[in-house]
Amino acid sequence: MPSAAALAPGVLAAQRRAIARALTAVENGLPGAADLVDALYPSTGRAWRIGITGPPGAGKSTLTNRLVGAFREAGKTVAVVAVDPSSPFTGGAILGDRVRLADRVDDDGVFVRSLAARGALGGLAEAAEAACDVLDAAGFDVVLLETVGVGQGEIDVAEAADTVLVVLVPASGDAVQAMKAGLMEVADVFCVNKADHPEASAIVRALRQMLHLRGGDAPAPVVVKTSALNGDGVAGLVDALGAHRQRLAADWEGTRAERLRRRVRRLVEAAWRRAFWTSERREGLTRALEEVDGEERAPHALAARVLGAE
Amino acid sequence: MPSAAALAPGVLAAQRRAIARALTAVENGLPGAADLVDALYPSTGRAWRIGITGPPGAGKSTLTNRLVGAFREAGKTVAVVAVDPSSPFTGGAILGDRVRLADRVDDDGVFVRSLAARGALGGLAEAAEAACDVLDAAGFDVVLLETVGVGQGEIDVAEAADTVLVVLVPASGDAVQAMKAGLMEVADVFCVNKADHPEASAIVRALRQMLHLRGGDAPAPVVVKTSALNGDGVAGLVDALGAHRQRLAADWEGTRAERLRRRVRRLVEAAWRRAFWTSERREGLTRALEEVDGEERAPHALAARVLGAE
Repeated sequence: MPSAAALAPGVLAAQRRAIARALTAVENGLPGAADLVDALYPSTGRAWRIGITGPPGAGKSTLTNRLVGAFREAGKTVAVVAVDPSSPFTGGAILGDRVRLADRVDDDGVFVRSLAARGALGGLAEAAEAACDVLDAAGFDVVLLETVGVGQGEIDVAEAADTVLVVLVPASGDAVQAMKAGLMEVADVFCVNKADHPEASAIVRALRQMLHLRGGDAPAPVVVKTSALNGDGVAGLVDALGAHRQRLAADWEGTRAERLRRRVRRLVEAAWRRAFWTSERREGLTRALEEVDGEERAPHALAARVLGAE
Repeated sequence: MPSAAALAPGVLAAQRRAIARALTAVENGLPGAADLVDALYPSTGRAWRIGITGPPGAGKSTLTNRLVGAFREAGKTVAVVAVDPSSPFTGGAILGDRVRLADRVDDDGVFVRSLAARGALGGLAEAAEAACDVLDAAGFDVVLLETVGVGQGEIDVAEAADTVLVVLVPASGDAVQAMKAGLMEVADVFCVNKADHPEASAIVRALRQMLHLRGGDAPAPVVVKTSALNGDGVAGLVDALGAHRQRLAADWEGTRAERLRRRVRRLVEAAWRRAFWTSERREGLTRALEEVDGEERAPHALAARVLGAE
């Protein structure tokens, strides 16, 4: 297999086939994927990466489609990455690329892709970030990173995004659930979708109150109401996202440097983990577990023994 | 502060105050928490640890309360740990211990606790496992580990549990969402709650079909229907859980050894991570980021440089 790094010129020339193959390479950690990312990185930093997350059933996909429409009308090119915390059993994205955004299939200004990140170096967060790099370097103005399904993806996507949109619905205690899952900390903009629900306004008020109570120096996230199905409120949502983008612009390089720092830390740790668990060390752990009998087994003492056996 | 290890005799004597303080110690990584866990570990292995997870709004808490009632009627003592992927902002469990299971407040055979795991050594999975150790060593027959809220906790809880129950509701495409989130892989028993919903039977059939398609040698997870609100189906659920427990009994020591192995690996990695990022290395990373300018920045090359500077 040729090195994925050879795809860089095609990506920079915005060739759709090269982009698709580059995304496959970073998703699966194919040979040369790291070199490809490194080659593209200096050409990144122009795209606006928007993470879209929230509980299942909140209408994230419909809202994503609305945002694609709004950004296209504003003359921007848009890539959509549906981040799917995959599993060996399901074998990846269930919502295939083909069934999404079918009405934009002939629009060269839109690129849609799901990302399962089974074998990515550094896990899902790194795969999401690398996918954004590919689409950024290919010249897309906006990259929408949408989480699919329950859990696991939120924090990863938040780490890869410039602006994080959390979508809630006024049902099932979602607002409270959002607090508990830590979504409150990562949100730059909240969107209460299904705005025609009788409790929508109450949820918006409750969210604003909680965000106000939070205090701190950072500006509180904005809360908007939308109805993704009929498009109501989408313009206001785009404005709220844009206002956050404007704030970021004041220290764009600093934001990017901080994200790169976090990312290098994560890559270092992932590389270390791969290097550390040699077959000798794995066997050493097995022996340690076998040598002590039930009465003497103790998790922390065993961990110290494995670490001490360096 | 005295070492938390001093709490071990009180925990083994099933003193509720010692148990509560021991749980606080492992939740927050207080001094001596690792020694406490090591001291208790040889007295563990008797309790049956059942993880209860699934999307928000599925009725997990109500079902947990039903299971507590069923196990109590069968003469077993029960501890409930509500695992809350906490955050600095919310400051821990929103559903306080006090508002849960209020009708059992005088029952010495029940112990209820929420677990936020802000400062636990080794993260939420280790905190959940250590909390189970405390309650196991204290003599509880059953420990119910329930995830609260959206995401993040599922896999951690699954790693700490003997039997994993995934609760779904016949709405919002939850069955499909469960597949996507990887819950399918960790489930030993599925429960479709709110059984009076018109789509309940269809979801049960679809789940069974998907599980059948999965193939493999392992026995397929059982799918049961419940209505936690009125208690319908809870007896059948208890039977399904019990059947899984019976299967585990055939190789209980092997199951425990494999879990200890995973846990020691995780502790080793957590200890390494703390030890690795000394202030010198953090400053080295900062310097590396400052020394290269925009054109030369590349995530993987920087990671290699930090690792190579050993």
